[in-house]
Amino acid sequence: MIAIKFVKFHGLGNDFVIVDALEESGLPENREELPGLARDVCHRRFGVGADGLILIKKSDKADIYMQIINSDGSEPEMCGNGIRCVAKYVYDAGIVPRRQIRVETLAGIILPEIITDDHKAAMVKVDMGQPGLERSDIPMLGPAGRVVGEPLEHRGEIFRVTAVSMGNPHCVIFVDDVQAVPLYQLGPELEVHPAFPRKANIEFVQVLNQGEVIMRVWERGAGYTMACGTGACAAGVASCLNGYTGRKVMVHLQAGPLEIEWSVNNHVYMTGPARKVFTGDYPLE
Amino acid sequence: MIAIKFVKFHGLGNDFVIVDALEESGLPENREELPGLARDVCHRRFGVGADGLILIKKSDKADIYMQIINSDGSEPEMCGNGIRCVAKYVYDAGIVPRRQIRVETLAGIILPEIITDDHKAAMVKVDMGQPGLERSDIPMLGPAGRVVGEPLEHRGEIFRVTAVSMGNPHCVIFVDDVQAVPLYQLGPELEVHPAFPRKANIEFVQVLNQGEVIMRVWERGAGYTMACGTGACAAGVASCLNGYTGRKVMVHLQAGPLEIEWSVNNHVYMTGPARKVFTGDYPLE
Repeated sequence: MIAIKFVKFHGLGNDFVIVDALEESGLPENREELPGLARDVCHRRFGVGADGLILIKKSDKADIYMQIINSDGSEPEMCGNGIRCVAKYVYDAGIVPRRQIRVETLAGIILPEIITDDHKAAMVKVDMGQPGLERSDIPMLGPAGRVVGEPLEHRGEIFRVTAVSMGNPHCVIFVDDVQAVPLYQLGPELEVHPAFPRKANIEFVQVLNQGEVIMRVWERGAGYTMACGTGACAAGVASCLNGYTGRKVMVHLQAGPLEIEWSVNNHVYMTGPARKVFTGDYPLE
Repeated sequence: MIAIKFVKFHGLGNDFVIVDALEESGLPENREELPGLARDVCHRRFGVGADGLILIKKSDKADIYMQIINSDGSEPEMCGNGIRCVAKYVYDAGIVPRRQIRVETLAGIILPEIITDDHKAAMVKVDMGQPGLERSDIPMLGPAGRVVGEPLEHRGEIFRVTAVSMGNPHCVIFVDDVQAVPLYQLGPELEVHPAFPRKANIEFVQVLNQGEVIMRVWERGAGYTMACGTGACAAGVASCLNGYTGRKVMVHLQAGPLEIEWSVNNHVYMTGPARKVFTGDYPLE
């Protein structure tokens, strides 16, 4: 019987089944079978259980190609938590014998770097690219310019929002007590607010001090998640834009912190953990 | 590094990490560490992910001893879905080279039998013992005798309940449309109804015909689950007691059916699937 060898990883609770598809892997030849396989493998009771299936493939342009298929079968351009796990995986396996790794994705070539590694867990720094701050970058309806602490009306209530694109649209709202926010009610409502023609990820952020914030996120299309890499980047950039913090911000999420640095070269660097959980063999039917 | 070898199984979506502890297994020597290990292993994002950790151990009285530790660290006496998985596991692994297997549990010796097996999945029949039908068996407050279709008042509404003990207390309520029942509201309320001094599992059952019912269950201490073996047994016994079905009933659950037979010897036999999902190595810290 054919079985797929895999390694299970997570980055702050965002978890992935990683398969090395550089060599013979047992994966279906037919690309159209991958969404169904991902749904099966990612099922938390009938499969291995994960947020996504990640395949490591050959790349002509970089060290490796990372293909992510979400648990619903869709294929996102990139995933900040997933790429940290991929970096640790290829470093551990000796596939790329360097701490700085070039990973081709649908969002271009991303450069994760292993900062520390104690076999089971690593800290990985990822260049997440430049934020888009113009209203049209998000996109968000309204006159040209940046959206920083601007009033947004919803159900008669005024929210002060800061809009940031990290390749995907983010609406950051600063609050006094992030735990008191009715996330399951406001998240899905604001996600589809008419101001955001391509919808938006909604981040509620509480400032602790000049270098630390707490974030709770409602992910576009995914709902409540324990961690959102691009959301943490947007929160860091928004905190700086509003003058609440410096350019380096520790963003505390449910399962731990991500360090976000909006560098003077305008790139956003995210540093966070990647953790190996177990290895397995998943037999195909 | 020490790693625990395991096999992941599920029975109708009730899923288990099974570890062969007959030989050297990497498990902690100290029994007091097991609840913490089970919580870690069963965590669906930071661990392997399961409803429970099952250890296969040596027995003086039977072929093997089955120890279950739930994902919350508690240790139930028995688990109808878990023991089917254990039977298939020890049969597959050649640990017990017979289709009829004697398994010692905290609820005594249970006798699962492999009916069919196609390597990945098996049908397993389990003698679940004799039902307790006297009110004191459940226990349920009130005068001596059986509780069959008896009115129970809750928030001014009258529910017709049938009470069955399968070693644990069950309150079975027949309804016209089981999908229309507000299970998340009524389940937790009826679970702690003052009539049940040790609380109760609440089963809502819709009769399809003389041989088939649909069940949705609220498990005492666990809430909504995809399948409950003892609950299906109680539903089968209650359907027969009320004259809705014969002694053999197919109980349809969310992930598939369990065949329940209340035999003339007064034992309840449950037949259902056990499915192997994958094998793995879980490294300890």
